[in-house]
Amino acid sequence: MTNQSIPLIKQFVALIKIKPFDSSLEFVEELADIMISDLDLKVVKKMCHIFNLAGITLVYILAQSHLVIHTYPENSVAHSDLVICANHNKKEFEKSLRHALYERGVYSIEVKTVKF
Amino acid sequence: MTNQSIPLIKQFVALIKIKPFDSSLEFVEELADIMISDLDLKVVKKMCHIFNLAGITLVYILAQSHLVIHTYPENSVAHSDLVICANHNKKEFEKSLRHALYERGVYSIEVKTVKF
Repeated sequence: MTNQSIPLIKQFVALIKIKPFDSSLEFVEELADIMISDLDLKVVKKMCHIFNLAGITLVYILAQSHLVIHTYPENSVAHSDLVICANHNKKEFEKSLRHALYERGVYSIEVKTVKF
Repeated sequence: MTNQSIPLIKQFVALIKIKPFDSSLEFVEELADIMISDLDLKVVKKMCHIFNLAGITLVYILAQSHLVIHTYPENSVAHSDLVICANHNKKEFEKSLRHALYERGVYSIEVKTVKF
């Protein structure tokens, strides 16, 4: 029998303003690795693309849904989008971002929660 | 000189309740193809995963950012997440979803906009 109830889906999105940074794949992967470890996420697949203007998109399909990080080095901005079928909260997401970006010259991290 | 302004980033997220459906990769790709065409998105890379319980995650890296669709067939639910660096609006996103899901037995489509 099909359950018409909504599955547990949580989504947290962050806009990060940061000092001019080296938008290398290594930098973005380090950021993601810390978040994945802190939030106990399980990676199923991974894909990335480096754009002409040095922006990077790094995508992970997770056992729990997905994590995507975009960098916009021309604006000194990064964007992180986490969708999870797990019981994390906004504070944990923000804490993992602050840990990942420790001593990286972050000006601000603004986090939004998408609720249904 | 680095521009500290926020780039144009728009994000629309939809939770779709739908009649029990065949959560095949073909179904999810058809849905995505219509959205990509309607919204004039340019696909750069694509990745998918089929989970044990028949849920599917389909991810596109776009020239404009990303589109991710998850299906939760056990709940008759799909989730669509579009991040775009382009001047689309919520109505266009919802219209493309309704077009893609025309005659698919949709009960409801709830769309949220993430604003920074």
